[in-house]
Amino acid sequence: MSENGALPLRGKVLTVDTMNANVKKVDYAVRGPIVQRAVQIEKELKEGVKKPFEEVIKANIGDAHAMGQRPITFFRQVMALCTYPQLLDDNKFPEDAKNRARRILQSCGGNSIGAYTTSQGIDCVRHDVANYIQRRDGGIPSDPDNIYLTTGASDGIVTILKLLTAGEGRTRTGVMISIPQYPLYSASIAELGAVQISYYLNEEKCWSLDISELQRALQAAREHCSPRVLCIINPGNPTGQVQSRQCIEDVIRFAAKENLFLMADEVYQDNVYAEGCEFHSFKKVLFEMGPEYSSKVELASFHSTSKCYMGECGFRGGYMEVINMDPGVKAQLTKLVSVRLCPPVPGQALMDLVVNSPQPGEPSYQTFMKERTAVLSALAEKAKLTEEILNTVPGISCNPVQGAMYSFPRITLPERAINEAKAKDQAPDMFYCMKLLEETGICLVPGSGFGQREGTYHFRMTILPPTEKLKIMLNKLKEFHQKFTQQYS
Amino acid sequence: MSENGALPLRGKVLTVDTMNANVKKVDYAVRGPIVQRAVQIEKELKEGVKKPFEEVIKANIGDAHAMGQRPITFFRQVMALCTYPQLLDDNKFPEDAKNRARRILQSCGGNSIGAYTTSQGIDCVRHDVANYIQRRDGGIPSDPDNIYLTTGASDGIVTILKLLTAGEGRTRTGVMISIPQYPLYSASIAELGAVQISYYLNEEKCWSLDISELQRALQAAREHCSPRVLCIINPGNPTGQVQSRQCIEDVIRFAAKENLFLMADEVYQDNVYAEGCEFHSFKKVLFEMGPEYSSKVELASFHSTSKCYMGECGFRGGYMEVINMDPGVKAQLTKLVSVRLCPPVPGQALMDLVVNSPQPGEPSYQTFMKERTAVLSALAEKAKLTEEILNTVPGISCNPVQGAMYSFPRITLPERAINEAKAKDQAPDMFYCMKLLEETGICLVPGSGFGQREGTYHFRMTILPPTEKLKIMLNKLKEFHQKFTQQYS
Repeated sequence: MSENGALPLRGKVLTVDTMNANVKKVDYAVRGPIVQRAVQIEKELKEGVKKPFEEVIKANIGDAHAMGQRPITFFRQVMALCTYPQLLDDNKFPEDAKNRARRILQSCGGNSIGAYTTSQGIDCVRHDVANYIQRRDGGIPSDPDNIYLTTGASDGIVTILKLLTAGEGRTRTGVMISIPQYPLYSASIAELGAVQISYYLNEEKCWSLDISELQRALQAAREHCSPRVLCIINPGNPTGQVQSRQCIEDVIRFAAKENLFLMADEVYQDNVYAEGCEFHSFKKVLFEMGPEYSSKVELASFHSTSKCYMGECGFRGGYMEVINMDPGVKAQLTKLVSVRLCPPVPGQALMDLVVNSPQPGEPSYQTFMKERTAVLSALAEKAKLTEEILNTVPGISCNPVQGAMYSFPRITLPERAINEAKAKDQAPDMFYCMKLLEETGICLVPGSGFGQREGTYHFRMTILPPTEKLKIMLNKLKEFHQKFTQQYS
Repeated sequence: MSENGALPLRGKVLTVDTMNANVKKVDYAVRGPIVQRAVQIEKELKEGVKKPFEEVIKANIGDAHAMGQRPITFFRQVMALCTYPQLLDDNKFPEDAKNRARRILQSCGGNSIGAYTTSQGIDCVRHDVANYIQRRDGGIPSDPDNIYLTTGASDGIVTILKLLTAGEGRTRTGVMISIPQYPLYSASIAELGAVQISYYLNEEKCWSLDISELQRALQAAREHCSPRVLCIINPGNPTGQVQSRQCIEDVIRFAAKENLFLMADEVYQDNVYAEGCEFHSFKKVLFEMGPEYSSKVELASFHSTSKCYMGECGFRGGYMEVINMDPGVKAQLTKLVSVRLCPPVPGQALMDLVVNSPQPGEPSYQTFMKERTAVLSALAEKAKLTEEILNTVPGISCNPVQGAMYSFPRITLPERAINEAKAKDQAPDMFYCMKLLEETGICLVPGSGFGQREGTYHFRMTILPPTEKLKIMLNKLKEFHQKFTQQYS
């Protein structure tokens, strides 16, 4: 700077050219350009711009409350009591809600959810989580010391991937993820500079997982990186399949044989709809396979308050359980999470209620069960409805939605549409979804955001809108698809 | 694996040797070994183990509620209403609380704080934050598009550091941080693999910041990295100083001249106690310096719900404002935060209340002001008390606690104590604090956890315990220091 204070002409310190290159590689389709356009359209509608529809239906994200699902009364009662303990004197609140609130508050510093907690999460919540896992898994023990509360499941997943990322060039950590996948995985892998190893799910067999495909992907990857992690999402996102017990056993055997750390994303564990399907946790199957496996295979599994019947995404509650983690690494993990102080305490408290819900004999039990069952049966009905209606459309073929909250149908696009998309430098299913949004107000995520076999096209659609709205949406979609096909044929 | 299913004998996938090397370098003293020992001692006390004290006093962390501070009534009322909207029919809640709750709920998907929000944070909250900043800064405009809600301030700080970290070897991003510093900075720099550039605060001049020291540190660093960021904490943590307007102007001029991105950690902006001291935001000073600076210098400033008079650490609410950020980078930032979906919604709502608190004429105004003033005057009193009592102890010298929540006194340690610590491979002030904890139950953080000039020793102590308890603690500390000095002389 010269003496008279004039600044030299310089550019910005932080530009797209000079910023973190890994961040640039990050992509997250669930909130990508199509959703940004949807938000814009909503604003235009509010400002009175005429459109061929009256509202945007956001079927792009698993956000139950936004789609009209009501919170579970008991959960919100306890959370209100924890937030404003003066309400503990109010006789409008049931005793079991008050007891839960008192117990949570007693484990908080100064009896306030405004205090920091230990970084691993409130002690009594971690105990309750361990008890829940033990009940869920037929008595297989769970140690509260292995439980870490998290800011949603995403936080836990990124933290474990971070621990696992090391090496350079050919020794760089490779992470096996399914294609299609939930883009948190590809985004975190890109951000951490790890190597993505894609294994394809078998669409023809209801998006099942073939060990031979795992083997193929692994072998190919060993040429250029060091594969160390295998990620599984069960029930599947975006694909809605529920893995059989046999398949899980095979995956565990594969991980053991190939020396892979297992990450099991099990946030949809209550969302199983199809007859004959059942949720099996990786932890349970691992321990049922005997000490040869249960004492060796390293596993981290993830759960959250955001899905299942609660749909409490906004609270960002979650937990992970780590099995067979090296004690030195566990100490490093505890240190690492301490830098962010603690997960949000309201989310921790809510996680506690999910794993410690009203029991038979307690005053809130019946209402709780009624509300829980209503959500889950409506979802089961909508899963079926979605599959049925979509499969009536020529050019759309949809696997059964066995679980989770999404259908991921395959769409046939006319050659001319594909070419027009390519001319616009757009993925063909992005072109399709964008047109759908502009013409009908329906907001879906193109399959290209999740990954798919070359030359196939899909979209992900949540089954969350209320039944009547879902029907209208599916029929609009049907109409649109027929029109689109005609227009480009 | 052999045909009969026997697994080859292999070690773990993830070990301390094979894990992320940057994570191993992370240190976070505020929750380090001394705090772990404190938690252990608390357990021992509960189990009936006899100690020379009855309780552990945790003066290691700025956790107001844990130290007995009561939440602000209005904030918790609104939060309870948002959590359990049935209470909106309850006439026990004041109308202004209900209005705030209704407004927040109307901006949530499905009118529920259980829905995801946009990744940047709820629209109306970002508008309220911008209005708050504008009022605070005497009318200098703030654009809601520049506001990002965060999971506490820590989250925002790490995110901006992440964007800024690039290059390899001599071009690797260097980050200038004060010594002493708040260890979130050193920890994040280590985790990201950036280069820490230490500039020392001037203890003799009440921990003030000298531009010549910034210049020295910068020049030295240019030999081995590419300095791009200058971080400032004002009011200071752990050092409690409040920067003068002149000093801030000099820092901005320095950043402009040296092409540095400024990060201003202003989470203690309401915590100013000393006469003649005043909080000046970097944003305000920057804009008062005229367009030559205000149109050029890149700045991110951070605030949270955790400190000031609210002390709501558990909600993990926060925001950052970015000034002069390249639009392309801003798009990358928005994309990056979208991967984690959104900050916790209760924390967003609470942040809204902090920036949109009761106004004169509203029913809750008087109670709110009474509560707010009570907290802040008690803190001012305790800041003074701490300085006064500590300075009566031979071998302890304490700068005035002008702001924030901590004192960071210098302690003189006898040569023999230093040698004994070194023999144990401990930092001498860690040795001192550990002994203090074992003998008195007082939990402080050694100065070595924050950084200090070679050969000097300190500790950080919060001023948060209730006045009477604080007095007892300070006198115990005095006694201990005298005994310790005697013992090792």
